[in-house]
Amino acid sequence: RVVVLGSGWGGFQLALNLDKSIPLTVVSPRNHFVFTPLLPSASVGTLECRCIQEPVRTILGSNGSYLQAKARTLDTANKRILCESIHNELFEVEYDKLVIAVGVKTNTFGIESIKQAASAHDDVFFLKHLAHARAIRTNIIDSFEQAAIPTVTDAERRRLLSFLVVGGGPTSCEFTAELHDFIKKDVTRLYRELLPHVSITIVEAGPALLGPFDKALQDYAQGLFKKRDIDVRLGTAVVGVEDFEGPGYRFPAKRALFSDGTKHEFGTMVWSAGLAPRTFTEELGDNIARHPRTHRILVDEFLRVKGHEGSIWAIGDAAINETGEPIPQLAQVARQQGIYLGKVFNGKYREDEKPFQFFSLGSMAFMGESKGIYDGSTAGPLRDPNNKSVHHWTPPALRGILAVLLWRFAYWGRQTSVANKIMIPIHWLKAYIFGRDISRY
Amino acid sequence: RVVVLGSGWGGFQLALNLDKSIPLTVVSPRNHFVFTPLLPSASVGTLECRCIQEPVRTILGSNGSYLQAKARTLDTANKRILCESIHNELFEVEYDKLVIAVGVKTNTFGIESIKQAASAHDDVFFLKHLAHARAIRTNIIDSFEQAAIPTVTDAERRRLLSFLVVGGGPTSCEFTAELHDFIKKDVTRLYRELLPHVSITIVEAGPALLGPFDKALQDYAQGLFKKRDIDVRLGTAVVGVEDFEGPGYRFPAKRALFSDGTKHEFGTMVWSAGLAPRTFTEELGDNIARHPRTHRILVDEFLRVKGHEGSIWAIGDAAINETGEPIPQLAQVARQQGIYLGKVFNGKYREDEKPFQFFSLGSMAFMGESKGIYDGSTAGPLRDPNNKSVHHWTPPALRGILAVLLWRFAYWGRQTSVANKIMIPIHWLKAYIFGRDISRY
Repeated sequence: RVVVLGSGWGGFQLALNLDKSIPLTVVSPRNHFVFTPLLPSASVGTLECRCIQEPVRTILGSNGSYLQAKARTLDTANKRILCESIHNELFEVEYDKLVIAVGVKTNTFGIESIKQAASAHDDVFFLKHLAHARAIRTNIIDSFEQAAIPTVTDAERRRLLSFLVVGGGPTSCEFTAELHDFIKKDVTRLYRELLPHVSITIVEAGPALLGPFDKALQDYAQGLFKKRDIDVRLGTAVVGVEDFEGPGYRFPAKRALFSDGTKHEFGTMVWSAGLAPRTFTEELGDNIARHPRTHRILVDEFLRVKGHEGSIWAIGDAAINETGEPIPQLAQVARQQGIYLGKVFNGKYREDEKPFQFFSLGSMAFMGESKGIYDGSTAGPLRDPNNKSVHHWTPPALRGILAVLLWRFAYWGRQTSVANKIMIPIHWLKAYIFGRDISRY
Repeated sequence: RVVVLGSGWGGFQLALNLDKSIPLTVVSPRNHFVFTPLLPSASVGTLECRCIQEPVRTILGSNGSYLQAKARTLDTANKRILCESIHNELFEVEYDKLVIAVGVKTNTFGIESIKQAASAHDDVFFLKHLAHARAIRTNIIDSFEQAAIPTVTDAERRRLLSFLVVGGGPTSCEFTAELHDFIKKDVTRLYRELLPHVSITIVEAGPALLGPFDKALQDYAQGLFKKRDIDVRLGTAVVGVEDFEGPGYRFPAKRALFSDGTKHEFGTMVWSAGLAPRTFTEELGDNIARHPRTHRILVDEFLRVKGHEGSIWAIGDAAINETGEPIPQLAQVARQQGIYLGKVFNGKYREDEKPFQFFSLGSMAFMGESKGIYDGSTAGPLRDPNNKSVHHWTPPALRGILAVLLWRFAYWGRQTSVANKIMIPIHWLKAYIFGRDISRY
């Protein structure tokens, strides 16, 4: 019996690729897989949430089962996991082979005010699940509707329509781009009189947006944002969020505290600033070796958990192989690891026959206004940087419309369900022709 | 300046038909119109919420504005309405012509326990807005996921999967039919092992389901439900709901109290048992004449509010003309009244030139499994029942697949947005081919 913890990129791909004759149990608090790279699109209504997800149960065979629960503690001696349903029902699941694919959660760097506001969807939002995308979309529309009320002051209007994006990674930049497109195309059409009050700010603690991308593409992206009057603040961190009151403001109004001491009022904050371990991986017993700082589970080149070879594997963001080349924490890595483990469990090769090899497809991001970036410099199998003798052809860096077409085609092609392959282009077309929908419910 | 209170059937149609040169303000807590007859479909995922609504702002011209607020008090002397935004911002709106189209709310007959549970979406739901449909869908799926947890007892499983529909009108019957289709097609596919625990009960205080329909069609509908093992309880009212605890039940478990003294455990209750006045119409001053029991605003045959001819009109469920033939409280009535007032305000005829005349299209309902009913006996203009000399041709009563085709075609044709006209058939087809989506988020 194979038990998979998690329904993200790694766990879902494993479940999808596993022979339907093998008994499988998927344990995850979310009964569906989310195509995370399209979450920024869903959070402004370019796409609908329904078309970027796929239920776990629809891909299970008759030997498969799904349990809407979180893994709590692992009993390796008896090969059992204690689980807790999202309604706090405790139960145990037995395994022969266990795959830990629980991923990571959004890092708030110990800032309690951010954590609290984000948990309550109180104008602060993460962007990791469909519920986040839906809540962001609702909050954006509600901010415009609130700002349209005649007695609201201009100061409060500016606060409501101040959008603050925290973190400069691809998710943050794509959300910023989607938000800008929404404002340019739909706010202009539907809330024209509010346009002068709108502002977008993106804050990154490091020296550049889009850290892992090629420098020229970073500059291109930053140039695009500046041309659109998006305020890009580099070398700045958000250290907290607070309620405040003041004449003309509806209480409680929200503002962020920046590392440079300034305060920044906002109506919507999207926080996508880093990755932190899940409680489950953090609280695993000492018999599961983990990286001391990140708590990622140590695996060998076959993705087997050290000391539990043959019974426990770990894949995706929750796992790390310290001995080989460092592999980035990306959806495509988790996906390939899920497919790899599927082949191992299906008996295509022995569990210690062929090490997992990451084949990078490069990085891409949507930058708004039919522009995108694609960085092919990392594409191909992972290389030993000291071995200069092997030369690879690498795809070029792309920018503009070509990169957007590649982005659309690649993400469309990655959909595993026929329904999504049909619905995604329909929604793209619908948003293009009719504009994004602004109903709030 | 025309001010319309409400964005339902009456208010939305008026806004849609009003000349774009006339200054218009729509005040409504919901920034969209909902195609209410398709709410039962949306509450199980046959359709998506997005495709059965239309934002108010998209139909406004440059002289139109929308305010996300509720009307609170009416100052007829100064022609002003005090409004309250959904975030409790108070402001006044001035009018030359005011149209009250606020509709009604769901009647809980003073039962506090129902009102509280429904407000909290605590396993009890009304079915009047998109948020209700979404909450019902989430609750249904969550009930199945909860019931799939291995340590849950069979008693609790039966409770979780006991669906209780209160009220025997078209909305309740259509929801029951949609729920049955969902169970037959999708639960069988995705939660097969839980099927034996599922039950559906529909409770109606009166002597028959589908009160306004022809007797033969009522019997047909009831026969269909009985054949499907749906428990139809006539002459029974729900008088309350309570939490209970017991061995094997997760606390708090819910059960309904029936008028015959029995108790009925449930996991989901959909309450659609009657209409009650909105707080606004209930609390209007004495200078607005209303029906003593229903608080509906008294209007003349031109839909003008008595004593305020030329400045205030009332349409839809919130209005009643006591002098003429009684007109039922139906979407099609409100719709025709909105269109009628649009013509009056556009100057097509004077406000006291041509009385409003309701032209009934008959009644129809979806009954599940590609069956429906259509009652044409009421179709045509309202008639004086004492005047037997005028004979009308009336469309026949239809049942089965023909009525479903008519139902689909009529509701499709009634969509006012091109986007919905495209998306509704796509979603029908998607649900037919791929099944309904069961992701919960």
